[in-house]
Amino acid sequence: MASGEGKKSKANASGEGKKSKANASGGAKKKEVKRETGLGLTNSKDENFGEWYSEVVVNAELIEYYDISGCYILRPWAMSIWEIMQVFFDAEIKKMNIQNCYFPLFVSPGVLQKEKDHVEGFAPEVAWVTKSGESELEVPIAIRPTSETVMYPYYSKWIRGHRDLPLKLNQWCNVVRWEFSNPTPFIRSREFLWQEGHTAFATKAEADAEVLDILELYRRIYEEFLAIPVVKGRKSEHEKFAGGLYTTSVEAFIPNNGRGIQGATSHCLGQNFAKMFEINFENEKGEKGMVWQNSWAYSTRTIGVMVMVHGDDKGLVLPPKVASYQVIVIPVPYKDADTKGIFDACAATVDTLSKAGIRAKADFRDNYSPGWKYSHWEMKGVPLRIEIGPKDLANSQVRAVRRDNSAKIDIPSAKLVEQVQEMLDNIQQNLFDIAKQKRDASVETVRTWDEFVGALSQRKLILAPWCDEEEVEKDVKARTKGEIGAAKSLCSPFDQPELPEGTICFASGKPAKKWTYWGRSY
Amino acid sequence: MASGEGKKSKANASGEGKKSKANASGGAKKKEVKRETGLGLTNSKDENFGEWYSEVVVNAELIEYYDISGCYILRPWAMSIWEIMQVFFDAEIKKMNIQNCYFPLFVSPGVLQKEKDHVEGFAPEVAWVTKSGESELEVPIAIRPTSETVMYPYYSKWIRGHRDLPLKLNQWCNVVRWEFSNPTPFIRSREFLWQEGHTAFATKAEADAEVLDILELYRRIYEEFLAIPVVKGRKSEHEKFAGGLYTTSVEAFIPNNGRGIQGATSHCLGQNFAKMFEINFENEKGEKGMVWQNSWAYSTRTIGVMVMVHGDDKGLVLPPKVASYQVIVIPVPYKDADTKGIFDACAATVDTLSKAGIRAKADFRDNYSPGWKYSHWEMKGVPLRIEIGPKDLANSQVRAVRRDNSAKIDIPSAKLVEQVQEMLDNIQQNLFDIAKQKRDASVETVRTWDEFVGALSQRKLILAPWCDEEEVEKDVKARTKGEIGAAKSLCSPFDQPELPEGTICFASGKPAKKWTYWGRSY
Repeated sequence: MASGEGKKSKANASGEGKKSKANASGGAKKKEVKRETGLGLTNSKDENFGEWYSEVVVNAELIEYYDISGCYILRPWAMSIWEIMQVFFDAEIKKMNIQNCYFPLFVSPGVLQKEKDHVEGFAPEVAWVTKSGESELEVPIAIRPTSETVMYPYYSKWIRGHRDLPLKLNQWCNVVRWEFSNPTPFIRSREFLWQEGHTAFATKAEADAEVLDILELYRRIYEEFLAIPVVKGRKSEHEKFAGGLYTTSVEAFIPNNGRGIQGATSHCLGQNFAKMFEINFENEKGEKGMVWQNSWAYSTRTIGVMVMVHGDDKGLVLPPKVASYQVIVIPVPYKDADTKGIFDACAATVDTLSKAGIRAKADFRDNYSPGWKYSHWEMKGVPLRIEIGPKDLANSQVRAVRRDNSAKIDIPSAKLVEQVQEMLDNIQQNLFDIAKQKRDASVETVRTWDEFVGALSQRKLILAPWCDEEEVEKDVKARTKGEIGAAKSLCSPFDQPELPEGTICFASGKPAKKWTYWGRSY
Repeated sequence: MASGEGKKSKANASGEGKKSKANASGGAKKKEVKRETGLGLTNSKDENFGEWYSEVVVNAELIEYYDISGCYILRPWAMSIWEIMQVFFDAEIKKMNIQNCYFPLFVSPGVLQKEKDHVEGFAPEVAWVTKSGESELEVPIAIRPTSETVMYPYYSKWIRGHRDLPLKLNQWCNVVRWEFSNPTPFIRSREFLWQEGHTAFATKAEADAEVLDILELYRRIYEEFLAIPVVKGRKSEHEKFAGGLYTTSVEAFIPNNGRGIQGATSHCLGQNFAKMFEINFENEKGEKGMVWQNSWAYSTRTIGVMVMVHGDDKGLVLPPKVASYQVIVIPVPYKDADTKGIFDACAATVDTLSKAGIRAKADFRDNYSPGWKYSHWEMKGVPLRIEIGPKDLANSQVRAVRRDNSAKIDIPSAKLVEQVQEMLDNIQQNLFDIAKQKRDASVETVRTWDEFVGALSQRKLILAPWCDEEEVEKDVKARTKGEIGAAKSLCSPFDQPELPEGTICFASGKPAKKWTYWGRSY
């Protein structure tokens, strides 16, 4: 099961490792960040991307750093984004007759180790409970890094005949992967929230179909909600889920640092786990069969990708579909102006928008200037700002300012709902379009090793013809490990360009079998 | 923070403790229970209550036992109940401007130990992570048993001035308390799901008011959703939340074994945690103040109380408001009858009910008899069964059978929605009324120690005048520790009967200060 955090590069094992000891002095004060938001960022997205990201997630009040390295506090501004996606996804999978359940956080070692490839993939990062109170446990107990081995012994118990199939369960939960390489809020953390779906079918055809149905939901989360273009494709043998048959994913790209990022994964596990956990059934004819299984997940990583793709030097930029406030209304009183009239107009504006189903809020705080509030809500990424001052009041209009492109427009009060809705739709579309332009501009098609190395050094998303051999991928990794940073395959897109007969693999010179995306990645 | 699992009797420390080692052989097969439901229970609620409960939670497919003792799998039939309550509660607290967030699962030892009474209350049950992969951690890290100490260092950071108040956060999460006394599904488990709210106010008055607002939501969950009567009241000093100022709770009662059970708790923490974690603010006048805090929680324990109160020898009985299927529709074809007509009528019935917002499903399986299906859905507790046979088809009617009292009624198809809705309302009310009758019949008012001991041996819910002294409560516990099982105070109800001057404490002979409920409890 991997959500983006499925398999990870082992390249950087030093990272923040040394800080892994818990700060025992109540480290809330450890990393003092600027408490007041809206006062701008000290880093620039283009110049110091990593620092910019660390700053924006804190200043936009998405994240608070925690006193245990690699763990982060998700503040309400982040949780509301998560909840909006959750409502969508949960309703969609319920339509597919997938039911929610909850399996324990803990795994006994015997079960965890049952599928060999799987445990090899996860063992180095498993956190172990060995004590309760002052007592040593007789046997250490693992914390789930993912729940295949937690769940499948019970699938074996519950599934007996073909009428018990398909079995389709999902859970919303936390998982723990105690890794030491470069913890990054949302993107790579030791604990994260996700959903994990685990399904079992009588036939491979049903499993194959579901893999793609779920992948389409993940595409919709990224493209329709987060306004981020993704490529649907299949992972290489080397990059697939440990213990599975094949892995599909949606892959996003961060133009600023030229890294690919696995957005979410939908795996067909084949019958590997079924064999290990003895998940058998009797078919219509009374013959013994073995189930075909899938597992699939997306995580809070989605939010991090959104921050990286859309954010700017003024802070976060939220796509309207996931913004807990889509519109912030700010009174702009001047001396001698009708302050009460302005405040009433703001309240009425929020009321009108709310009744139309638009998430709006007024900022009536009297200890901040309008200018401070503009910066504050820009930092937090609210898609549309409405300003109401004396002139607006006099003209029965409001002034709307877009977060994405700073465009200003005066809206007659009579057309408020209609025009605000239109602007929000435009913002959603514009964010996607711009992200797609940038992503597309980063794609470079190469055919030779030299072109490949050149594109990699320019931080491109590289599309190359490949022989699809695992040894060649390992070799590419090894050969690019130096200064330019190791490259790996991201996915082979389902939407394949034409591959003329006689096309040669960029890395091995053997006949190419498919086009594959390559690059450095998270 | 306690949800019912707040403070626990330390009386029985042997319990299932010895089984605490993980079963390393993939113990799903360890405890083979009858897989097919609907075949009746082997234990009777009145004769073997404990065994009956263990059997019904499994046979109704709420729970599967897990290979780590004290951990349980929540199956979809249980999760759907949890989700229905969650939708209600989450919407209500959002109306109160309480926001959701997510803090880490892990706590560093220094922070955990900051509030002394608090850590004493929880330390014996804290699970410790000491290893990741093959490496020892430099400092062991605790798993949250509750999140006061996880959160409050950040409250200290985020709260500076009166404008930052109130701060009102909630999270839906899992917590871990590694206890060894009598694990029981839903009621007492090593990991459970709950919500925990944590709020901070400028004044005690605001904190006091919120404590009761939240307690009222907990009452509504029990009384309006789960159809279980509860007493609202205040816990004694001895039974209050470790580290808090005072604890309020809703208390339920299980007539079959005469045990009280803490349903959910809403604590005023006073300023104790604020002092330890330095949660200070500057008020309007520029003076330094310290916040007043609350914490409050309810957990999956709610579901266990529901099973215990309403279940019977045919299985689970679900109140319609929390039933994922409120109506199960079963075709009853006879040979030579119009089978297709009957099946179509069933499908049409489900369709009509669903469109009216009633959660209905038809059981069209062809490998089970109608009689088997009746038992199956009775075991699962579906409130209303609709049978459609040839006679019903001929008469344009359906037959409805109530789960709670087996009453049968023929409903003309034309009045389907109206009468089904009415029956569901009646069932909801009837379950509450019967539970209340049984609870009320268990209450015994006593005035002397002899009466108290007599009532305790009869498994009563005892209302007694009490001097409200902690030493006296400890003494009551000590004196009842023998055969009859230690008694403790459950709560002093807000709704106090008259206490005439000169009334004497049942236990100490000192002047009584209040009426308090006593009994054995979970």
